[in-house]
Amino acid sequence: MVNKKQIRGVYLVTDRPLCIHHNLAEVVKLAAFGGVSFVQLREKEADSRTFLELAKHLKTILTPFSIPLLINDRLDICLAAGADGVHLGQSDLPWWEARRLLGNDAFIGLSLETKEDYHSLIQLDPNPSLDYLAVSPVFDTDTKTNTKPAWGLEGLKWLRSKTTIPIVAIGGIKESNAEAVIQAGADSIAVVSAICSAKDPKLATEILSDKFHS
Amino acid sequence: MVNKKQIRGVYLVTDRPLCIHHNLAEVVKLAAFGGVSFVQLREKEADSRTFLELAKHLKTILTPFSIPLLINDRLDICLAAGADGVHLGQSDLPWWEARRLLGNDAFIGLSLETKEDYHSLIQLDPNPSLDYLAVSPVFDTDTKTNTKPAWGLEGLKWLRSKTTIPIVAIGGIKESNAEAVIQAGADSIAVVSAICSAKDPKLATEILSDKFHS
Repeated sequence: MVNKKQIRGVYLVTDRPLCIHHNLAEVVKLAAFGGVSFVQLREKEADSRTFLELAKHLKTILTPFSIPLLINDRLDICLAAGADGVHLGQSDLPWWEARRLLGNDAFIGLSLETKEDYHSLIQLDPNPSLDYLAVSPVFDTDTKTNTKPAWGLEGLKWLRSKTTIPIVAIGGIKESNAEAVIQAGADSIAVVSAICSAKDPKLATEILSDKFHS
Repeated sequence: MVNKKQIRGVYLVTDRPLCIHHNLAEVVKLAAFGGVSFVQLREKEADSRTFLELAKHLKTILTPFSIPLLINDRLDICLAAGADGVHLGQSDLPWWEARRLLGNDAFIGLSLETKEDYHSLIQLDPNPSLDYLAVSPVFDTDTKTNTKPAWGLEGLKWLRSKTTIPIVAIGGIKESNAEAVIQAGADSIAVVSAICSAKDPKLATEILSDKFHS
């Protein structure tokens, strides 16, 4: 496991079908060279064996860079691959079960799709042991289907005013709007197609990463 | 966790769409009253949260009977629900990873679809730490799609001659052929529709269970 670090910078969420110019491993390696801060392996169709093999492969790529690898939903894949944590949606395992099973060293992030999700979370535990909250989606996007209405920058600002837990914004983020998202309070910007489908994933990552230094 | 016990008797594999006369929980409870030895929760479509809730519910039902609950494929669901083990297919997590993560007290069973699967297993580890091998399918069946050709009774006898690991036979087993399957060397007979779709799951379990005492 990579030591825990501050949630900040560019967060790559993988999507194999969107890796059109390079394969998944190449995209991840190029993003690592481009300065990506976190990588989440998301596999909605793969069987467990394939998912685990991909996770182990990405972990091998990312370890020399000390870049944490998170696994979408599947805590068992995280454990078996020695990955650094899990990203959980509202229909995934409850975060407190994940914390109990993975321990304090693991990164655990939770997607919030609505303000109601935030209220439910805080009602259950005013100080939840979560490493980040994901505002999902911040903008409408084609990547993920069946999502609720976008939070927008106003929604993101609203959540920022409510919590000190780091915020990862995801959904429709690209070069042209990244700065506005950061200014609205996101500690990290998560992207799928902006890196996966880029002709030059290293350059795409660098350009997004620069937004945190400007 | 239920204490480990010998693999023997009727093994119910759940399938919610096939629970036509009673819901899943009722089927499991009636099977428990009928003397079922093991229950495996199999959910191929459910999201993780739903899967976990079902597992916890079944665990509550089965604990008073000291009947082990196994989870199909999803080791994380097993851990979070406090279930008793996992049933693994050839595309699921490797059994040795499951053993490492679940420990020696957990039941771990592995499906073999072909003789080649058995040879690969033994080549890797002549004495694998597995609680049972599943001959799948012993007969052709409508329940599971995309399975390899059935083992048949001859295939089952062949595996019996090769190993002392308990054998669970699954696929197309019903009242009329259960005895032949047991005589061919199965320690346990796994059924899906024969109990899930029965008008009287308790009676169906009793009838199958009796085959072990005749």
